[in-house]
Amino acid sequence: MRLGPGDDAAILRLGDGGQCAVTVDLLTDGVDFVLRDTDPRRIGHKALAVNLSDLAAMAARPLAVVVALALPRHGGLEIAQQLYEGLLPLAEQHQVAIAGGDINSWDGPLVISITALGEPTAAGPLLRSGARPGDRILVTGCFGGSILGRHLDFQPRVAEALHLQQQYELHAGIDVSDGLSLDLGRLVEASRCGAIVDVGRVPIAAAAHQLTLEQPAGPTPLEHALVDGEDFELILAVPPAEAQRLLVHQPLLEAPFPSVPLTDIGEFVAHPGLWQRDDQGRIHPLAPRGFEHSFR
Amino acid sequence: MRLGPGDDAAILRLGDGGQCAVTVDLLTDGVDFVLRDTDPRRIGHKALAVNLSDLAAMAARPLAVVVALALPRHGGLEIAQQLYEGLLPLAEQHQVAIAGGDINSWDGPLVISITALGEPTAAGPLLRSGARPGDRILVTGCFGGSILGRHLDFQPRVAEALHLQQQYELHAGIDVSDGLSLDLGRLVEASRCGAIVDVGRVPIAAAAHQLTLEQPAGPTPLEHALVDGEDFELILAVPPAEAQRLLVHQPLLEAPFPSVPLTDIGEFVAHPGLWQRDDQGRIHPLAPRGFEHSFR
Repeated sequence: MRLGPGDDAAILRLGDGGQCAVTVDLLTDGVDFVLRDTDPRRIGHKALAVNLSDLAAMAARPLAVVVALALPRHGGLEIAQQLYEGLLPLAEQHQVAIAGGDINSWDGPLVISITALGEPTAAGPLLRSGARPGDRILVTGCFGGSILGRHLDFQPRVAEALHLQQQYELHAGIDVSDGLSLDLGRLVEASRCGAIVDVGRVPIAAAAHQLTLEQPAGPTPLEHALVDGEDFELILAVPPAEAQRLLVHQPLLEAPFPSVPLTDIGEFVAHPGLWQRDDQGRIHPLAPRGFEHSFR
Repeated sequence: MRLGPGDDAAILRLGDGGQCAVTVDLLTDGVDFVLRDTDPRRIGHKALAVNLSDLAAMAARPLAVVVALALPRHGGLEIAQQLYEGLLPLAEQHQVAIAGGDINSWDGPLVISITALGEPTAAGPLLRSGARPGDRILVTGCFGGSILGRHLDFQPRVAEALHLQQQYELHAGIDVSDGLSLDLGRLVEASRCGAIVDVGRVPIAAAAHQLTLEQPAGPTPLEHALVDGEDFELILAVPPAEAQRLLVHQPLLEAPFPSVPLTDIGEFVAHPGLWQRDDQGRIHPLAPRGFEHSFR
């Protein structure tokens, strides 16, 4: 094994010298989706997309997936059919083979577990551990409020990651599955450094504003952006001159990309931990918060 | 993809020429085990062992696994700990890396999904599709009654499969997960041939006899052996002269193998379908029965 647990995917070295990136994500009814309220096609899309997002975070080209299902005994086969109707167009789009699967019935709710295999490019895998003090924090897209629908329908940043990794110098990357602050916290921990987020620069999704409008006593739009999770955007650590070049080029605004802006939201620093800098330049701690599985 | 869905594992061809076998098995509480009555260590062992058995059926050397868990919110972390205590010794024994995983909590019962990656040997993968008329049906071990405990504690025939595939000429193979007759039926279907089982030669496990003693009105020991499933033994298609050599050598009775006899239980034939031959030489149809997931 070249890279074990702790990054977005593991990297295996095969006997003949080949490398293979592997990642698994399991989605359950009531946590990652609510089957009663959701078209299973959207659930199938999401189940594949979260795995492709993990490969994107490694800048690995997706090759194949295996799909394991625990289907409710009642109506399970119809659900499976619809899951595949949602999953297949995304697989085709990314030229990912459905290599196999395991279909089970049981008396419990729907569970989908997908394992995705990919290959790093000649530029090598993009790890969480390469950020250096002075690097800029670049993010794709915008953040917050994905619960209003984007968490089901997002497009994983696969082509974007492959393009950036091959054309630019990137030091580290991660995808935002559990929250911008939480996943940035994971990246700085893996890189043994810290980060200062210029909170005024964080790109906030329209959905985050809408959530605050609906619940004025709840989190602000910025808080949604920092904490909500399931944005499935990329956080990248990029050397300053290269970041400058990227921000001017904005390569992801050009075809074939679906117009994904890159935004500079701050810098990596030597001092460990996560910090926020407000518009007056004052620096405060930033708690890495987001979605975490709870037990009791 | 060199080999897609329909065998015990898929075979991927990587860009650099390497090959990778991949298989997934998802186990649920109430179907594959009953958590309330079972030490989670045995469940962890089984969850890995069923996957290694699929790689054994392909004669692929196990390399790594990823483990996805849906854990009950109450006590889930303790369960996870014990699952790993059961899984790790088997992983070490087979030098399999735990490359990563995905740990989830939810309000449902325990689900374990393991994906295993392996490499075919220089002799190539062992497929379901290679049996030819005239080949002998050889099986490892014995069959029936695994529900009394063997379905949790069995040893996957990995080393056995690798040894046989490299030292002898094998035409096809499958592991018995759902039932000797059902899985033999799958092998002949993939090989577009038929098979005659000499039912008097089927090696019957002591547990199958015990089940019949406990329920004299239920299936006979032979019926248990043909139908019960979860034996996780190998069915092999072997050319006649090679089968003769194997039966004389009995290589799996020698170290380092745990004394696994090879038994000739019949022959592959050109006529499609599954047949049984009794001690008087009379031939009757043999229904391929075993465990299949049910929906309504």
